[in-house]
Amino acid sequence: MAHSIKTISIIGSGNVASHLALALHQSGFRILEIYSRSLENATVLAKKTGAEPTNRIEALSNQADLFIFSLSDDAYPEILKTFPHANALIVHTAGSLSIDILKTTSDRHGVLYPFQTFSKEKEISFNSIPILYCGSSESVNEQLKALATQLSRNVRFADDTQRKQLHIAAVFACNFVNHLYAIAKEITDANDLDFSLLYPLIQETANKAQSGDPIAMQTGPAVRGDQSIIDNHLTLLQATPDIQNLYKTLSKRILDTQSDLK
Amino acid sequence: MAHSIKTISIIGSGNVASHLALALHQSGFRILEIYSRSLENATVLAKKTGAEPTNRIEALSNQADLFIFSLSDDAYPEILKTFPHANALIVHTAGSLSIDILKTTSDRHGVLYPFQTFSKEKEISFNSIPILYCGSSESVNEQLKALATQLSRNVRFADDTQRKQLHIAAVFACNFVNHLYAIAKEITDANDLDFSLLYPLIQETANKAQSGDPIAMQTGPAVRGDQSIIDNHLTLLQATPDIQNLYKTLSKRILDTQSDLK
Repeated sequence: MAHSIKTISIIGSGNVASHLALALHQSGFRILEIYSRSLENATVLAKKTGAEPTNRIEALSNQADLFIFSLSDDAYPEILKTFPHANALIVHTAGSLSIDILKTTSDRHGVLYPFQTFSKEKEISFNSIPILYCGSSESVNEQLKALATQLSRNVRFADDTQRKQLHIAAVFACNFVNHLYAIAKEITDANDLDFSLLYPLIQETANKAQSGDPIAMQTGPAVRGDQSIIDNHLTLLQATPDIQNLYKTLSKRILDTQSDLK
Repeated sequence: MAHSIKTISIIGSGNVASHLALALHQSGFRILEIYSRSLENATVLAKKTGAEPTNRIEALSNQADLFIFSLSDDAYPEILKTFPHANALIVHTAGSLSIDILKTTSDRHGVLYPFQTFSKEKEISFNSIPILYCGSSESVNEQLKALATQLSRNVRFADDTQRKQLHIAAVFACNFVNHLYAIAKEITDANDLDFSLLYPLIQETANKAQSGDPIAMQTGPAVRGDQSIIDNHLTLLQATPDIQNLYKTLSKRILDTQSDLK
């Protein structure tokens, strides 16, 4: 049986690093050190998790059972190069990066991908957040799964391709969805309407997606093929050609998908 | 003071008609008659609301204080032509149709627009659904407002332009958002991943939009200007050029919006 993880050091102090460090601390793991380029940021997070702060990656103690790198994607190469412990168990938390970026740093490596959107201020319960893991060996897989299971009841294995594709799915279901909310707000703002009028609709649409197949539950003028409303809307959107264009593209995609289903 | 509405007949038996008829019935209004082209559909809804069913529009009694037309947009002209009561108070429930389509049928007319997405099977509490009203006169406005207030605590006046623009906002925040959920499901399905992995993300994204300005809360590679992830995602979407194209269009719009904000 693989050695179970008890002590952890965190490299990074951004949204994912902070939420993860707190969740691990609250789940009884000992957070040894927090590294951040900014000692101030490292100190803030270290205080919350009973850890030592540092801004010197090469000074990290080798006592941690696991080192979690949670950085912006482009920061990895530089930081990994200066990481001092060649045989440590190391993971990153990025949806879009291959497990292989860690290969030359240590043989024992993996990915822990908490699948949620994190905001700086808003606390969030890890309990229901899917955590996807992937290790360089069966023994690493076991260790990561055991750790993730102490944070969440929704733990799954996902290989590199699956994790990257899931990240793309998240771009659609979170980032792009939010942008459509933003467009809706542009429209209500421009017409002296309160954006909060949309809250029940936003909530119900999200509820529906969690209770069945969104492809089958599509509503609106495009799926009904109601060209007269579509034309009407396109005319009303003439003052904002970029929104008009998006309306056209999305309606077309809905129409095309629906004819595929027939 | 305007005469208050007590008895109502409903013309239509679709989703909006059904939910509205039930909510009115439960709020103590007397539903007199339900008209539907299909006597069977009229009967189903009439039974639930203590009303009489009919499939003959010209046979509708003139005893109702209000006639609510809730039809598919293209059914209005024909039905309105055969409606027999020239001086009745009549409203439609369509977001996209002008109040003026009712003008030649009766002087006393208006719009009652319940702003929500309705599913056939799923009961929904009207209490928090925004209801937008608009009448042909101050006295009709008063009557519609008084009625709507008995259904919901979220009642507002919206003129034709506002209602139509709100309907467009709904196409973005509901219909198009649902289509993005559908695309996310296409991606998870294609990669042997469970779509339910996205539920916490979908919920949290909807929560955030209801707690602040979605424009300010945009996250993801596009708003960070992270071209390497965007390129990476576009490559991974090569097998589905229509999804790839949507990814490109939406990312560009996010990038453009963000540079406008700077």
